[in-house]
Order: sequence, then structure tokens, then C-alpha cells
Amino acid sequence: MSSAPSQDFHSLGASVIELLQQRGDDEAAIDEARRRLAPLHASEVADLLESLPPAQRLSVWRLLDAAITGEVLLESSEEVRGQLIRESTPERLAAAMALVDVDKLADLYDELPAPVIDAVIGAMQAQRRRALETLRRFPEDSAGGLMDQDAIVVRSDVTLEVVQRYLRWLRRQQGGLPELTDTLMVVDTQGRYAGALSLADVVSLEPRRSVATTMRRDIAGIPATMPAHKVARIFRDRDLISAAVVDDDGHLLGRITVDDMVDVMQDEADHALLAPAGLDEEHDIFAPVLRSAPRRTIWLGVNLLNAFIAAWVIGRFGAAIEQMVALAVLMPVVASMGGVAGNQTLTLVTRGIALDQVGRANARRLLGKEIGVALVSGLFWALVVGAVALAWFGSTSLGLVFGAAILLNIVNGTVAGTLVPLGLSRLGVDPALAGGVLLTALTDVVGFASFLALAMAFVV
Amino acid sequence: MSSAPSQDFHSLGASVIELLQQRGDDEAAIDEARRRLAPLHASEVADLLESLPPAQRLSVWRLLDAAITGEVLLESSEEVRGQLIRESTPERLAAAMALVDVDKLADLYDELPAPVIDAVIGAMQAQRRRALETLRRFPEDSAGGLMDQDAIVVRSDVTLEVVQRYLRWLRRQQGGLPELTDTLMVVDTQGRYAGALSLADVVSLEPRRSVATTMRRDIAGIPATMPAHKVARIFRDRDLISAAVVDDDGHLLGRITVDDMVDVMQDEADHALLAPAGLDEEHDIFAPVLRSAPRRTIWLGVNLLNAFIAAWVIGRFGAAIEQMVALAVLMPVVASMGGVAGNQTLTLVTRGIALDQVGRANARRLLGKEIGVALVSGLFWALVVGAVALAWFGSTSLGLVFGAAILLNIVNGTVAGTLVPLGLSRLGVDPALAGGVLLTALTDVVGFASFLALAMAFVV
Repeated sequence: MSSAPSQDFHSLGASVIELLQQRGDDEAAIDEARRRLAPLHASEVADLLESLPPAQRLSVWRLLDAAITGEVLLESSEEVRGQLIRESTPERLAAAMALVDVDKLADLYDELPAPVIDAVIGAMQAQRRRALETLRRFPEDSAGGLMDQDAIVVRSDVTLEVVQRYLRWLRRQQGGLPELTDTLMVVDTQGRYAGALSLADVVSLEPRRSVATTMRRDIAGIPATMPAHKVARIFRDRDLISAAVVDDDGHLLGRITVDDMVDVMQDEADHALLAPAGLDEEHDIFAPVLRSAPRRTIWLGVNLLNAFIAAWVIGRFGAAIEQMVALAVLMPVVASMGGVAGNQTLTLVTRGIALDQVGRANARRLLGKEIGVALVSGLFWALVVGAVALAWFGSTSLGLVFGAAILLNIVNGTVAGTLVPLGLSRLGVDPALAGGVLLTALTDVVGFASFLALAMAFVV
Repeated sequence: MSSAPSQDFHSLGASVIELLQQRGDDEAAIDEARRRLAPLHASEVADLLESLPPAQRLSVWRLLDAAITGEVLLESSEEVRGQLIRESTPERLAAAMALVDVDKLADLYDELPAPVIDAVIGAMQAQRRRALETLRRFPEDSAGGLMDQDAIVVRSDVTLEVVQRYLRWLRRQQGGLPELTDTLMVVDTQGRYAGALSLADVVSLEPRRSVATTMRRDIAGIPATMPAHKVARIFRDRDLISAAVVDDDGHLLGRITVDDMVDVMQDEADHALLAPAGLDEEHDIFAPVLRSAPRRTIWLGVNLLNAFIAAWVIGRFGAAIEQMVALAVLMPVVASMGGVAGNQTLTLVTRGIALDQVGRANARRLLGKEIGVALVSGLFWALVVGAVALAWFGSTSLGLVFGAAILLNIVNGTVAGTLVPLGLSRLGVDPALAGGVLLTALTDVVGFASFLALAMAFVV
């Protein structure tokens, strides 16, 4: 029995690379490297490749068994995949793609060079080619784009015994049943989806029962146009392994399996984490510097604009700062407290929107509660910072103004943290991407302006 | 066929609440509210409850059918669950818990009041009680703590026909097979796990074949002590539905199913998203103000300490600012650019560590690449901001110093963004929680100090 892996991919990758670098021309070393890689599944190899810098990545890629290369390409992030595709011969790519499922091939269709696509499609059977065309009609991130076409389909008017005989015949014909087959899809005579028949029922119930009285009718077919993240939610909430995908008239088009939904959830989670830093989930952490730099540079530019707006605000109060340098010392504290408080609310609300837990129906109440939290927390810190400023600079009025500005900016950050993501999502803008930038602009501007204006009025 | 839901839970929640508020004493209204909730699965009800403020949450909770309440409690976040437990009678809780799986009961063991636990355990059959004791031996976030005890176990020396007869018998005895049964667990005569027998094989292969020649031996048993996130990785990488859990000697203890692993992945993703804002994944977005405020307040305090350190640094250069107020105007730009650049790297590296893609073996190379990106991006923006400062304040030396400080702090942020999470994780501190705070402290201090010191030396 092979041992369960899930080891550190960067260590295994490093050990294989070391081997190749020391004795790269040596057949025995190459065999040893292949032996170390052999127990890994395709997605584990993809993780390993992603943990290597580009040149080393290629030397491992070239060692891989052709049978696994197609799956490895699919499991890699977009940038890493792009590199591997660019550096492989069309023949190697065509051989890799001949072995992958049609639904995966559809996902890669636009990334593969035209000669590879032509070679793969030319070698396909007519049925597989039609399946590919059906899939290509739907966006990649919809139920239709994610479905497999390998559902086992049975009619409702037969008995379980007939179903089992059919499965045995199918097994002999195809040498196996499709992966992750927990249920068979039942259709009526027009090919419309009627219900799901679980293998557990086929195997454990009286063989003379009919499919019609055994199948579950309460598992609805998923419309092919449903967005992937909604499908993933249904899978998670209902603990599904597979589900039927149907067209507008209820005809069975294919099936979706839980492994693809796990990938969708992972992508969603990555997006929520990475978008606020201006990064995307297909990023290659070892991309060459000149490929990584442009996108990061643009993101810094967006934030620079923000920072200059704040600087302009400060500049308006130059006279006050000239008179009292303590204002320059304390003003970043005001901006930062508003930013931190606002970011907490922003994170919670953006996540609530993504989970469909926050929306128009409860936005007002949520805002009220957030303002309450901000007042309690803000009042406490206003007293503390006011006292610190008083002790540090010996000015009561400075302490009062500093405390008041902190309170104001904590409340401002919290209100903005609630309203900015709700507003962006109503405008159709992704709050995970743009929310943080907007929030920082607001808390910086309000933080600097409120503190300096109050100081100008009451202190200087 | 029920329609696929995944609707907005806050809207459905609001509609039920409206109904109860308008005609709460009316039996027909309560029936109507129950009817609207009936199609929801337990985890959907939990999502809905989380989207409601506490008082309204309770009125919906009281409407729920007893059969679903146990599952709803399990699917709720810890804080929401705490509220529901506090507000329910011991009898209602005991009735709810009598219906949930033993592994879930083990998870809630420490959250339920003692009288409820006693009542539930008192009413248990001896077998269920022993199963609960086995589970309680393992931490909640290990394979042993997550396993079910409902695996169907067969011996390897029987034929598939015997297995199918056994499944039919079991079905008649228990009225059904356990949920998510895709494979049967095969054990030897000592109860040691020997392999997995898929239902698809039982149903589609020749009945006279033996289990021994049919079972898959390449799916290893998962050690009961393996941490949950490693188990989830194996499920994701190997597209598993269920897997056997074994003790040190290879004895079969139970099985883990993919639905629990999906929850683990979700929790991990939530943690990665929420921890950097000082929030935790069990947070109730509608928690009462006085419960939410303390934790948020502490987080603001940690950041306040940071901000005061930065303020102290600025204060050291008060004389320079007094002479040239432009320094006060521009210094937040330097701090913020370092912070944004650093946060990008921090996010990527923290995620890479969590995915086991970044570690000692490739840290140095990653650092080199990140410094490269920082130099390209930093040089570009140094030129831009230098020119802006020159145009704004008409001082070449100020422009040069401002540009140099920006470049320095972008490189500083990037280096810190790489080394801080690697260092924290080597010290056993969660980089998702503490990384951002430390990084901000570094980019603020270095940003302010480098700009003001350079200005003091070359400009003022």
C-alpha cells in the first residue's frame, strides 16, 4: 500500500532537482528522479511544479510520464500552464490532450496552440467531438462549462436487475465505469432528466423493484447556465457527489462532480484572499521578474494616486503643521486607526456578500450594529490616545482634538467598510478587488482632514 | 422535483421575519413560514440564521422542525451556535442531539451544557456510546476527530456476490446505507485495513470474483492523528469521496467523507481571509455590539501600538519637518507604498506556506525574485514620484530624496513580506494572524525614518 503523501512539495521538488543537477546526464539518476515522482497524483505534481522556478520546472516536466501530462497541465495555475504549453512540442501536447476528459479539453481550448487543437480534434471520435461542441456552447464558469459528458443514463421503466445487467455490460465494453459514479441519471423517453438513482440503492435493494419507484426525485437538475459558484454552494450545502445538468427544457446534458466543485470553491477562496492585494489566483509565484513586475507596478500606481490625494489634503493644512509639528507626528495614527477599523468591517461585509448572507434586506441593520461597535471601540481608544497625546505634548486641547479625530475616523472607516462593498456590488464591481483601495482613500482623507481641521480650529 | 435553491438567504430570511412580525400570533402565518423554510437543507437554514440579527434568529429557530435542529446547530458558526444553545431548553437540545451522527456529537461535546450531554449519553445504545468515546480520544481537527464510525466493513476472503447479499441484509436491518457510501472498507482477520472496495465494482463486476482481487490496495489508510488540513489536501488532490482512518497498527477506526473535508477547506480559506484583519471564522456578523466590540478593540490596540511607534519615529525628526512642511505632506506616501508592495508579497508567501509550496528549500530563490520585482517596480515609481515632488515643491533635492526613499521602502516591504511570514511560521506563530501587523510596523518605521533622515542629510 503506498503511503499517504501530502508532504512538502518544495522539499520533494528540491530533492529531484538536486539529483538532476548533480547527475543529469546519468540514466540511473533520471530513473531515480522518475521513481520519486511516480507516487504523486497529477495535482500533486502540479503543486510541485508551481513550487519550482521556471527553468527547473521544465526539467521536471520533461521527465513526466505522457499518461499524466494532460492532467498535470489542467491542475496547474494558468501562468505555469502557459509556460509548459509554450515549451512543449505540439506532438507532446496533442498526446497529452488525447487522454483528458472532454470537459477539461474544453477548458483549455483557448489556451492551446491551433495546431495542437486541430491534431487533437482530428484524432477524436465523432461522439467525443460532438460532446466538445456542446461544452463549448457554455461559459467556462457555468454549470454547462463544468459538466462531464460521462453520466451513466438509465430509463425509469426498467428494474434494478436490468440496471445492474446494463452496468456489467458497460463495464465490459469500456473497461471501467466513469470516476466518481455514485448515482445514475434517470431520463424519460424524451431524454428529460427525471431523477437520480444511487448505486447504493441498485446494489442493496430488491432487484425486481423498478427504477421509477427507487430513484430520488428531490435532487433537481442544475440549469446549464447556472454560475459555477452557485453550483458549488449547492454541492456544499447538500453534500452531493454528482448532479445532473439540464437545458431549459429539462433535457439531460451531462453531470457535474464534486471534485470540480472543490476546485471552484478553492478558486473562490483564492480570489477573496488575493484580489484585495491586487493579485490574481492564476499567479505564478516564480514568474520571471519582468512578467511579475508590470501588474504589481500598476497596483502600486493605483495606491500611489490614493496616497497623493491624501498628501494633497495634508498640504492644505501646511500652515497648521508649520506652527505645531506634533500634528505631523500624530496625523498618521488617526489615518491608520480608521483604516484598521474599516478593514475589519470591509472584510466581514465583503465575505457576507460573497456568501449571500448580506444584502439589501439586512444592510441597514448591519450598518447600525457596526456603528455601535465603532462607537464603543472608538470611545475607548479616543480616551486612551487623548491621554497619551496630553502626556506627550502637554496640551489638553491637542489631546481632545486627537481623541475626537480618532473616534470620528473609526466610525468613518466602519461606515465606509459597510457601504463601500455594498455599493460596489450593486454597481457590479467586484468588492474584493476595489473595496480596499476605496476604503483606504476614504480613511486617509477623512483621517488627515478631520484631525488637521479640528487642530486648526481649536489648537493652533 | 424541488427547484434548486441557493437563493439569497438574507432575502428569504427577511420574508419569513416579515411574515412573523405582521401576523406572529396567527397559526396560518406560522404554518406559511414553516412551509417557506421546509425546502432548505440544514446548512442552508444555518446560513439563513446567520444572516439574521439575534432576536429574529431565535424566532426562526423556534419554528424549525426538531428533525433538522441538530444538523442546523452543527452547520452554524460557533457564536451563532452558542446563542442557540443558550436559548434552548435542555429537552429540545437533547432531542436534537439524539438524531445527529456520533462524530458530530463529539465535536459539540464541550459546547453543550452538562445536563444535555448526560441526557443524550444516557439514552444512547452501548455501541454508540463506545463510538463516542473512541472519537473523543482524538483532537477535533485531526483525522480521528473528524471520522464517522459508519463505514461498511467487509472481509477480503469473500466474493462480490456475498458482499452484495450482505449489503441487502444490512439495508433491510438499518433501513438504508450510510450517506456518501461509495466504497466499502476491507479488513483482514485482525481488523487491519487492507484496501477499499468500490460500490461501482461490486455492482458491475462478475459476482464470483473475490474481494481480495477486486479491492484497491493503493488507497492508503489515513492515520487518525493526521491534521485535518493535510487530510483535506489528500482528498482534493486525489478526488476522494471517502477514506479509511487507521490507528498506529493499521486497525480500521472509521472513515472520513468528502463533505467534512469541504468544510475543513472552507474553514481554512476563511481563516486565511479573516485572520489578517484580526477576525475569526466563527464570528457572528450580527453579534450584539458589546460582544463584538472587545475583540475588535484589542485588535485596534495592537495596531495603535504600531502607529505610536511610527509617530515616535516621526517625532525624532520634528526639527526637519518644522523647517520644511513638505516632508510632512510626502512622508505618508513613502510609508503607504512600502506597505502596499509588502502586503502583496506577504499575501503570496503566506498562501504559499499554507499550501506547502514555499519553505526553506526555495525561500532564498523566492526572495531573490521578489527583490527583482521590487527593484523594477520601485525604480519606475521612484522616477515618477520624484518628478511629481519636483514639480509640486520645486526642489530637485527633495525629489531625489523622495524617490530614493520610495524605492528603499518598496524593497524593504518586499523583503519583509517574504521573511516575516517565513520567520513566523518557523517560530510556530500563525503568519496569517501576525504577519500584517509586523509588516506594517516595519514599512511605517522604515518609510518615515528613511525619508526624514535622507531629507535631514541632503535637503533641509
